[in-house]
Amino acid sequence: METPTNELEVVKSSDLKPKPVGDQVPFGTVFTDHIFTMDYETGKGWHSPKIVPYGPISLDPAAMIFHYGQTVFEGLKAYHTEDGRVLLFRPEENFKRLNLSSDRLSIPPIDEEQMLEYLTKLVELEKDWVPQTPGTSLYIRPFIISTEPNLAVGPSQTYKLMILLSPVGSYFPGGLQPVIIHVEDQFTRAVKGGTGMAKTAGNYSAGYQAQANAKKAGNADVLWLDGVEKKYIEEVGSMNIFFKINGEVVTPALNGSILKGITRMSVIELLKSWDVPVSERKISIDEIYQAYEDGLVEEIFGTGTAAVISPVGELNWKGQKMIVNNHEIGELSQKIYDTITGVQYGRVEDSFGWTVEVN
Amino acid sequence: METPTNELEVVKSSDLKPKPVGDQVPFGTVFTDHIFTMDYETGKGWHSPKIVPYGPISLDPAAMIFHYGQTVFEGLKAYHTEDGRVLLFRPEENFKRLNLSSDRLSIPPIDEEQMLEYLTKLVELEKDWVPQTPGTSLYIRPFIISTEPNLAVGPSQTYKLMILLSPVGSYFPGGLQPVIIHVEDQFTRAVKGGTGMAKTAGNYSAGYQAQANAKKAGNADVLWLDGVEKKYIEEVGSMNIFFKINGEVVTPALNGSILKGITRMSVIELLKSWDVPVSERKISIDEIYQAYEDGLVEEIFGTGTAAVISPVGELNWKGQKMIVNNHEIGELSQKIYDTITGVQYGRVEDSFGWTVEVN
Ligand SMILES: Cc1ncc(COP(=O)(O)O)c(C=O)c1O
Ligand SMILES: Cc1ncc(COP(=O)(O)O)c(C=O)c1O
Repeated sequence: METPTNELEVVKSSDLKPKPVGDQVPFGTVFTDHIFTMDYETGKGWHSPKIVPYGPISLDPAAMIFHYGQTVFEGLKAYHTEDGRVLLFRPEENFKRLNLSSDRLSIPPIDEEQMLEYLTKLVELEKDWVPQTPGTSLYIRPFIISTEPNLAVGPSQTYKLMILLSPVGSYFPGGLQPVIIHVEDQFTRAVKGGTGMAKTAGNYSAGYQAQANAKKAGNADVLWLDGVEKKYIEEVGSMNIFFKINGEVVTPALNGSILKGITRMSVIELLKSWDVPVSERKISIDEIYQAYEDGLVEEIFGTGTAAVISPVGELNWKGQKMIVNNHEIGELSQKIYDTITGVQYGRVEDSFGWTVEVN
Repeated sequence: METPTNELEVVKSSDLKPKPVGDQVPFGTVFTDHIFTMDYETGKGWHSPKIVPYGPISLDPAAMIFHYGQTVFEGLKAYHTEDGRVLLFRPEENFKRLNLSSDRLSIPPIDEEQMLEYLTKLVELEKDWVPQTPGTSLYIRPFIISTEPNLAVGPSQTYKLMILLSPVGSYFPGGLQPVIIHVEDQFTRAVKGGTGMAKTAGNYSAGYQAQANAKKAGNADVLWLDGVEKKYIEEVGSMNIFFKINGEVVTPALNGSILKGITRMSVIELLKSWDVPVSERKISIDEIYQAYEDGLVEEIFGTGTAAVISPVGELNWKGQKMIVNNHEIGELSQKIYDTITGVQYGRVEDSFGWTVEVN
């Protein structure tokens, strides 16, 4: 890959927007004054990195993103510490995963280190947008879209990478709230050999029908089962899932159809450091219900950038209700939550080297 | 669904483009002077149908299409007859299928009859763009994208429907050319409960890696197997597939993971009218190879709007080569091709009522 024009160009907005007050911003609806953009063209490579004022982008209606969905994205956050620093949580892992997703979607890779530099510069410029109310953060959305105007099915010759920043309120303003989850046995999110391990647009809208049905029935989201046998547990909408059974923590192994969550990875590292037994393996939904019958299911929780830890208070599968820990947050879930958010907000020592400070 | 402003507004371009000369236009790269657009907003329904000059569209970088892939599309063609008429081939079926796809992707339905009227008006205006060289046509691409600027995962509150027109050369300029197809046993396109039966963007880029591998090995495209057992035949990249075995024609049944092709439907109707035995059922790849060993595989062909009929001269599966009809087009394939293209170009009587004339 050639790197012709890699000098970052910064065009500042002359018309700064008012920042939202307090904690009541709905997720993903307010954006900062600037975005990062970078272009790709076959033969030229990624070029023209820019920080420019937030504003509409102009695309040919034949741009491939609209027709064949060749696109990938990431999601991470910047946190404001009490002593006034701004921290990113394992951002290098997000750019690594972006490249994994791009590989699956036949999108050219980016230079991960350089992207981290660009991101740091963008967050630095928008530092005042990182909210300071406890539990709030600045959500960061890098994404790549295919832009060549061409209706022939096949990889695009041009791409645009962008990074959007969006201040978000606390996920659990009233403290951790266990959620009710529907175990989906009709619709499928992903299957071996498909795109499930990639963070790509089509995987998400594929879940809307199942999620709408689940919500109608009073559930917050769905737990996906494998697409082959509808038997093995995969993940929740935008979270990986963990079970604490009889003192041991288990989570589905990375099998090609679930996302390699960065929170998941961090939880596993944390549990190992605490000598809590944890394993990644195939887990059938029957096994979980059997363990429940036997009184061994102690805690269930989802993990993801949005909530960090989202305790599951109830699972519903084919009319069978499983009430977990009396709809209350478990001790281990709370401890993991406190530790990871502690590191993110600079209250707990970062002994793993997870955070990157923005100057 | 309310229908507030349904009066079609037409804004003509003052700067008409030169039309491509002859038959050498690469598919999907040249577009006509005008496009059709229509907007949707929750509470307001589909509104503001417009024919406007072709040009870039402006979207918020947070528009949902870029992040969660909520989008559907269609593909059909307009044909120029020798006596100077312009015909559409079963366009009502495309709008019906668009609504089926939209249902799967949680996109609000369109009024099929009204859309056909709008399309007819657009093609009428662009009549001079329908190429006249034998075998050429005007490709029509209706599509809907989700446009709400919101990073929360879930259905958009706003959408844009567009129709693009693109003159295309003959698919087989030198006569029907049998193709070599790789039977894919690693990657998966779709699975039961997924989005395989919908014409939605993510299904297509999901196939790029497999298609690139197949092309490197000298194949034109891949034949997908089912995502569960990798055993049952599904379809080719943008075509359904038919086998003539021992005098009987078979094609995979509509099982939820393959597209309900309009050419497929037409071929089945045609074969029935000719009293050729035809059945839609589960077909395993082993069955096909066994029939081949037994000398019973007479013809294989793909069906789709692009090529109408694309004879398959060779199948490659796990290192086993199957040579079909000595790499030559079969008699039945040729007859179907001649009949359907005959109807499309007005050379053969349209006894099925498949064509719609544009005035
Ligand atoms: C499908 C899916 N699974 C799991 C996760 C959790 O990943 P992470 O912990 O990196 O946020 C996400 C995303 O954010 C996701 O979209
Ligand atoms: C996946 C897929 N299968 C089959 C077909 C054939 O359908 P039709 O005959 O309606 O063109 C197409 C498309 O055009 C397609 O995209």
